[in-house]
Amino acid sequence: MAGSTLGTIFKISTWGESHGKAVGVVIDGCPAGLELSESDIQPFLNRRKPGQSIYSTPRKEDDTVEILSGVFEGKTTGTPISMIVYNKTQQSKDYSEIASYYRPGHADYTFDAKYGFRDYRGGGRSSGRETIARVAAGAVAVKILNGLGISFTTYTRSIGSIEIDDSNFDENEILNNQIYMPDSEAAKKAGEYIIEMTKNHDSVGGCVEAVIKGVPAGLGDTVFEKLDANLAKAIMSIGAVKSVEIGDGSRVSKMTGSEDNDGFKIDQDNKIAKCSNHAGGILGGMSDGSDIILRASFKATPSILKTQHTVNKNDEEIEISIKGRHDPVIVPRAVVVVESMAAITLLDALLLNMSATMNNLSKFYNR
Amino acid sequence: MAGSTLGTIFKISTWGESHGKAVGVVIDGCPAGLELSESDIQPFLNRRKPGQSIYSTPRKEDDTVEILSGVFEGKTTGTPISMIVYNKTQQSKDYSEIASYYRPGHADYTFDAKYGFRDYRGGGRSSGRETIARVAAGAVAVKILNGLGISFTTYTRSIGSIEIDDSNFDENEILNNQIYMPDSEAAKKAGEYIIEMTKNHDSVGGCVEAVIKGVPAGLGDTVFEKLDANLAKAIMSIGAVKSVEIGDGSRVSKMTGSEDNDGFKIDQDNKIAKCSNHAGGILGGMSDGSDIILRASFKATPSILKTQHTVNKNDEEIEISIKGRHDPVIVPRAVVVVESMAAITLLDALLLNMSATMNNLSKFYNR
Amino acid sequence: MAGSTLGTIFKISTWGESHGKAVGVVIDGCPAGLELSESDIQPFLNRRKPGQSIYSTPRKEDDTVEILSGVFEGKTTGTPISMIVYNKTQQSKDYSEIASYYRPGHADYTFDAKYGFRDYRGGGRSSGRETIARVAAGAVAVKILNGLGISFTTYTRSIGSIEIDDSNFDENEILNNQIYMPDSEAAKKAGEYIIEMTKNHDSVGGCVEAVIKGVPAGLGDTVFEKLDANLAKAIMSIGAVKSVEIGDGSRVSKMTGSEDNDGFKIDQDNKIAKCSNHAGGILGGMSDGSDIILRASFKATPSILKTQHTVNKNDEEIEISIKGRHDPVIVPRAVVVVESMAAITLLDALLLNMSATMNNLSKFYNR
Amino acid sequence: MAGSTLGTIFKISTWGESHGKAVGVVIDGCPAGLELSESDIQPFLNRRKPGQSIYSTPRKEDDTVEILSGVFEGKTTGTPISMIVYNKTQQSKDYSEIASYYRPGHADYTFDAKYGFRDYRGGGRSSGRETIARVAAGAVAVKILNGLGISFTTYTRSIGSIEIDDSNFDENEILNNQIYMPDSEAAKKAGEYIIEMTKNHDSVGGCVEAVIKGVPAGLGDTVFEKLDANLAKAIMSIGAVKSVEIGDGSRVSKMTGSEDNDGFKIDQDNKIAKCSNHAGGILGGMSDGSDIILRASFKATPSILKTQHTVNKNDEEIEISIKGRHDPVIVPRAVVVVESMAAITLLDALLLNMSATMNNLSKFYNR
Repeated sequence: MAGSTLGTIFKISTWGESHGKAVGVVIDGCPAGLELSESDIQPFLNRRKPGQSIYSTPRKEDDTVEILSGVFEGKTTGTPISMIVYNKTQQSKDYSEIASYYRPGHADYTFDAKYGFRDYRGGGRSSGRETIARVAAGAVAVKILNGLGISFTTYTRSIGSIEIDDSNFDENEILNNQIYMPDSEAAKKAGEYIIEMTKNHDSVGGCVEAVIKGVPAGLGDTVFEKLDANLAKAIMSIGAVKSVEIGDGSRVSKMTGSEDNDGFKIDQDNKIAKCSNHAGGILGGMSDGSDIILRASFKATPSILKTQHTVNKNDEEIEISIKGRHDPVIVPRAVVVVESMAAITLLDALLLNMSATMNNLSKFYNR
Repeated sequence: MAGSTLGTIFKISTWGESHGKAVGVVIDGCPAGLELSESDIQPFLNRRKPGQSIYSTPRKEDDTVEILSGVFEGKTTGTPISMIVYNKTQQSKDYSEIASYYRPGHADYTFDAKYGFRDYRGGGRSSGRETIARVAAGAVAVKILNGLGISFTTYTRSIGSIEIDDSNFDENEILNNQIYMPDSEAAKKAGEYIIEMTKNHDSVGGCVEAVIKGVPAGLGDTVFEKLDANLAKAIMSIGAVKSVEIGDGSRVSKMTGSEDNDGFKIDQDNKIAKCSNHAGGILGGMSDGSDIILRASFKATPSILKTQHTVNKNDEEIEISIKGRHDPVIVPRAVVVVESMAAITLLDALLLNMSATMNNLSKFYNR
Repeated sequence: MAGSTLGTIFKISTWGESHGKAVGVVIDGCPAGLELSESDIQPFLNRRKPGQSIYSTPRKEDDTVEILSGVFEGKTTGTPISMIVYNKTQQSKDYSEIASYYRPGHADYTFDAKYGFRDYRGGGRSSGRETIARVAAGAVAVKILNGLGISFTTYTRSIGSIEIDDSNFDENEILNNQIYMPDSEAAKKAGEYIIEMTKNHDSVGGCVEAVIKGVPAGLGDTVFEKLDANLAKAIMSIGAVKSVEIGDGSRVSKMTGSEDNDGFKIDQDNKIAKCSNHAGGILGGMSDGSDIILRASFKATPSILKTQHTVNKNDEEIEISIKGRHDPVIVPRAVVVVESMAAITLLDALLLNMSATMNNLSKFYNR
Repeated sequence: MAGSTLGTIFKISTWGESHGKAVGVVIDGCPAGLELSESDIQPFLNRRKPGQSIYSTPRKEDDTVEILSGVFEGKTTGTPISMIVYNKTQQSKDYSEIASYYRPGHADYTFDAKYGFRDYRGGGRSSGRETIARVAAGAVAVKILNGLGISFTTYTRSIGSIEIDDSNFDENEILNNQIYMPDSEAAKKAGEYIIEMTKNHDSVGGCVEAVIKGVPAGLGDTVFEKLDANLAKAIMSIGAVKSVEIGDGSRVSKMTGSEDNDGFKIDQDNKIAKCSNHAGGILGGMSDGSDIILRASFKATPSILKTQHTVNKNDEEIEISIKGRHDPVIVPRAVVVVESMAAITLLDALLLNMSATMNNLSKFYNR
């Protein structure tokens, strides 16, 4: 089954395993005429690179992207953009132990159940390295959307029980700390918590939040292709995500209609606007012109040094301890992945929206 | 843009507005040879019908389904199954008021923003009546899955702050109370809360949970077509849903790896099984053989009698009070919608999985 | 497998069997704001109705279309347009004979091979009645395209060996004769030939040609989604079509480059144009601004009175003679089906083309 | 718009321009467990390589394929297979002339019309080099199909007016001559004709035919996803193809029902078979168990030395003569491209067919 392709007009196909030769992505359907070079992509990849923080694995990955097609004289041509990142620093180590049992919280067992065998080197296709391809495509989507006045603010909302204080929110702080939190105080506490859990041979989870500003009203559709539905798919497709929320999210189940409904008003520019934004920028599956707000909850890194119970290839129950260079928390590195998946989804909705009305057709084709 | 079609092999296309002539669905790709008649569909539609409970609108909708194609001599033929439900009891009332302003929490404004105008009669395509088509298709999916030993238990987990007590969980109780809760005590309290809020001219939200048993391991894919990603899309595409959770859901953000990971063991049938199920039956995007567990949070019904602030067609700010027969809570009627969307998604993954390996091909085509 | 859905933005799903309750189509993705009523659809259905010509079956089919959704106050709303045509005049005759053997040239055998059984009443889903749904959708596509200055001239090019003489081509003649030929002389001869073959208890084939004027240059894509590739699929998907040709078609295999290449010139309006049109209006998969020209070859009606050799359910070889009201030629009634499929394909390409460049995006979203 | 992706389960995405860094393909959805290495792909690429024949361009292209992902320990893993062929021998020549005008018969004009500019180096994405990616994917599809007993015989049927004599048909001869004709006599004449036309500074067209044996009955669907419809799309999507025919193809328009219908019989193995094969192995859109026969007509190479009339960038009419290393005929090198596209299409239909019936589901999932 074809599971590595996403999108209708802006369609991406990713490929590659963590310990294969390379990982990559083909973007089919990028509009022609976008100025694009590797320098647009690399900063996004750098945001997800390991080895830059005391909270991420010390292994260095030299993730340098190369554009192989679809760009001519500095501009996209409308043909597929193929991008590749070679897996340069993978160690040719001994995987026989990891091949011999099922790691709890990983896809080892389900891969075997589906296919009868698996690429056991470092997670194979289920590795976090797969997200390199998503981020490379996301960088292109973000560039296009930025050009249309749409901006992304994505950050770590919480690590374990340590959550940012919205009254301390400082966007400029996000890239100032290694947790990518917009609240230096919370970031400090979160860092201490991570170090504590690492000492415990354990790992921690957390929550990423994205705020998207400048989205025109009317993107998305009414039934299955709701903008929030496609965002939910895109975000839930990131490994380790176990919940997706839009706006007030799961809190709405405890709210009344009068608490949750956003009234409408005439704003200072004499335009219709909402008085509040419990809806998170989406009403009836379509963007409403307010900020789009979404959250993803990530589970803790499943690879831990702590002893775990599992089963080996001989159907024997065993105790294991997973060694190696694993992040004690994946949340900070996942921030740019969430942003990328949101941007890819939003751009596709934006392109699809162009043909929604007869008025648009008539204008476009000059009749 | 085409937003009312879902699925790859088991593909459904729904149509119809709340106050048009009818609503319906075309199922394209249903396997041939399934015994099917209206009597398989009608009980599902009855579970979402209004007017059966003191907590739903008193209006009676006579939602009788008719199969128009795809069934011959009592069996599906492999060709599209078209089903229709006529809108018999819609009142030809005056919609001029509703047409004149934007109801908070509804899609009125976004429809106008996208298309320049809207079908303002009772919500049009964004009405809850649209889910009739989903449920009719879901009934077919559930029947096929049941035949393969896969069963669904779907219920109201909470209404407002009133949640079921898992130690009181009684599956048989679900259809015994008008809230569809598996806990009679909680159902009673929830009922009282709904009545109280109705007296306040307000409405309430809640949470629906589905537990799917008997799912073989290996359904779903590794990257974008993860089983949980597609479930998230399908569930988030239901109107009023603002969060989707799998297994421990948003709680994982506060858990450590050692708390969240499910160890593996050899069970009493000498098969590999998980020691716990924090993952909710899905690992790396593929079913792991445990129960699949998902939750959806529904916001409160946006139509309330309480005074709300909004804007009218003349760009004037006004105060409104929405009269009419509206459910004070949509959660109980949404239970079968969640079950239907989960079943449609799961069946598609199950059909796609058949061609995943060369072994399967060789067996199927006898080589 | 889902085989009755076509298109990316303008997506149609058809359903219904010849002797079921009805046939129909759901159009998902029609732009909002198109004035539409049954009176736009019915004339197209009338062009394919039987019983209007001495060369078609004398059975009368009262094919009256009803729009069930997607239109409000006379305009499309952007939501799915569901259209239905009831099968009113199907006789409840005895099909036991036809059920007992495989008719040569029909899908009886392949249906059984695929599904293990079939709806044997009058061809079921493989009946020509299935094209009603295509034509209803085609009428919508043609209306949109006409509004953009794109027009269709579709006609019978040949019946058996009798072909129109291009020097006699008269567009106004097409609807003047029952063969839909733009050459009254050829139409007369073709009519005589059909009558002769009918007396022989035989049937005849022929060729349909479509000329599409006013297509802007640049529709279609460069690789798999070439405009001609999608036209080939759409036309070949019509029952009884065995070849599809674009422009000079199969003749190009005998031509040299200097004969086949169309030079460019500056036309009287100071625009770039082609000196000739061997290419049939498509270069490199994209429309080139010239007339799009395509041809489809239809085989003779497979149901004939003449004795044929076949096999029955008991695996016995038998001789059969197929009685009943069958057209001696399907070509004239297929003209509007070819036009419809071409229009559906072209419209989808035209809608997809709107998001092809950054310039378009910037203009559309005002940046 | 996304035009470089094809297929539903076996889905391919191609990328790359003739004078970019590389061309490649991602196969998403290849069944797991197929033994695969570059040595399975390279022989197919060699069949389309230039410089091997006196009738093809003397330029040498060192088209060496490398598998970058999706294969582990010699077997496909079910994850995307990424393959790359570097463009090693493209000369960094001066393209300013070709950039300055529209070559007749090429996509130069339509590219500019669609996108406003183009990659003018050697045809860019519209170059014949794009078919490398198709052939690499086709080699995988053919390997899978061969393993199921399905075989392909693909060859040049005609060059200009020189057609093979079916009574001389010798499959072993195909790879014995540089025209890939199964008739040495015809091959000799065709070679002489090509040389003559080359001396005339002209080029020639021709026809490719494929015969596919061993296809089980029942592949393909009844309406839009007819096997012949998808074959028509796949074949017509190859550059320079202007007609696609199945079985008797365009000749059916001149045949009567009694001539064209294939009767059924009981064959020597006591199985149902057809008495003839005018249908070319497909009835009602589904394979009928006979050989599938299809033909594609290719136009002559548009790049010719002969003087041609065209328009330059300054909207001036000019005379041009296209120099460079161009094949005088593309047909022999296109043989393997036709085979590849047919195999890709057939495999997708074969995979989709596995979930067509409840019987299959029950057997597969053991209920």
